[in-house]
Amino acid sequence: MTYLFEAATAVEPAGVAGGVRRYRGEVHDGWDIGGNANGGYVLAIAGRAMADAMGRPPLTVTAHYLAPAPPGPCEVVVTTVRDGRRLATCTAALVQGGTELIRVLGTFGVPADRGMHHLDGGPPDLPPYDECIGSADVDDPELPGLMRRLAVRLRPGDAGFRSGEPAGRAEMAGWFAFATETPIDQIGLLLVADAFAPAVFNTGVPFGWVPTVELTVHVRAVPTPGPLRCLFRTRFVAGGMLEEDGEIWDASDALVAQSRQLALTPR
Amino acid sequence: MTYLFEAATAVEPAGVAGGVRRYRGEVHDGWDIGGNANGGYVLAIAGRAMADAMGRPPLTVTAHYLAPAPPGPCEVVVTTVRDGRRLATCTAALVQGGTELIRVLGTFGVPADRGMHHLDGGPPDLPPYDECIGSADVDDPELPGLMRRLAVRLRPGDAGFRSGEPAGRAEMAGWFAFATETPIDQIGLLLVADAFAPAVFNTGVPFGWVPTVELTVHVRAVPTPGPLRCLFRTRFVAGGMLEEDGEIWDASDALVAQSRQLALTPR
Repeated sequence: MTYLFEAATAVEPAGVAGGVRRYRGEVHDGWDIGGNANGGYVLAIAGRAMADAMGRPPLTVTAHYLAPAPPGPCEVVVTTVRDGRRLATCTAALVQGGTELIRVLGTFGVPADRGMHHLDGGPPDLPPYDECIGSADVDDPELPGLMRRLAVRLRPGDAGFRSGEPAGRAEMAGWFAFATETPIDQIGLLLVADAFAPAVFNTGVPFGWVPTVELTVHVRAVPTPGPLRCLFRTRFVAGGMLEEDGEIWDASDALVAQSRQLALTPR
Repeated sequence: MTYLFEAATAVEPAGVAGGVRRYRGEVHDGWDIGGNANGGYVLAIAGRAMADAMGRPPLTVTAHYLAPAPPGPCEVVVTTVRDGRRLATCTAALVQGGTELIRVLGTFGVPADRGMHHLDGGPPDLPPYDECIGSADVDDPELPGLMRRLAVRLRPGDAGFRSGEPAGRAEMAGWFAFATETPIDQIGLLLVADAFAPAVFNTGVPFGWVPTVELTVHVRAVPTPGPLRCLFRTRFVAGGMLEEDGEIWDASDALVAQSRQLALTPR
């Protein structure tokens, strides 16, 4: 069977010329925040095309966001930069109706092994999935469409921003799963990295759109099945910009991804 | 006058066609680690060409490293992705003798202001510059060429890796300055982000080359004059890879840059 996330990020080869491969895809309705598709979701579409072109999954991917992404057909143009034995690097442009929405640069390959040498830190300390706060537990008529596709559950307290009771620290922690229990692979991790409300909302800053300028995701291991534990933090707001760092952990206590984005302060 | 770093990263326009601008530059001798140019230095050459093409300084730049960089002439090919009012995005390929050494994706613009709202953390707690450990203070015949161009001074203890006495934690903190007292601008910050020995050396891992796969630098403010305080940390070694996060602070206690790189474990 094809899971919903796979279908919503599917791409179809549409031609090869030189080092350039074209794919047809679609920004599907319902993966949005206020009408525009979530940045991690759009990155997952591009990432799937890039992974197909390189014949291996993503290790490190950086997207620069150029324009909002409404639903509709799109094209992903993948250009090979270097196709090496262990690592392959390529760029992608995701284009919709003549407008480029994101430009991506990534290196693809397979993590060497699952061996982990923790130097500092482990998974966030979260209550069990069922004791965290699901979107359905909150009466929010403005719940973004994306959140209906996901079964994200927030650490108690971190959901306070929704009801005007922010936790007072720029953290957002919780569990990530798809609503349809789709297994989460490396392409899914690109979405996970941008699937939580901005951590800065929990400082009590005025609500607003926090436009991502750039998002980088490092895939550190292939997730084992099951919901993922996630922690997002913003430490510095400066120059009209903020960074948000993410850690994503699987059921075996392996760090499966790290993320960092640079975003404009809420407007 | 032209400072040494400016001269060593200078680029000269060599043609415009469509959205593509070509620049001539040179990987100068003496900015190396064991014969190959430092990754931050090479990024600075590309970044200078990109900033010239976009008419503004870097805000967030990501480089993927494709091949080692020996000294010699190079070309930087800059392609505009989007030229907006506040932000401009472009890619660059730095090519030497037909081999692409790095591919870069970046967004350029001017930070909105120097106003800083610290959420969590401040500059690293370092002894004064003169009480930290300079390269000249250590008897190291294998001191990389790069370190002779810089006046980096390490936090006492963090230099222990050089004499087989690693501090036992994956941190490397210290002061950054150019040996010639060149002011440090946004292009200089691209070098600073990769100018310290790998933090992981202070865990006692066997020495070796730690090849950077990808380096992202966020420029958060324009540095005030004077040496910069820097802290680099590695938290997770997994799948044959490690991340290294950097913070760079100026004399006014402003965070001027954050960096993160994904590197292969020492080999």
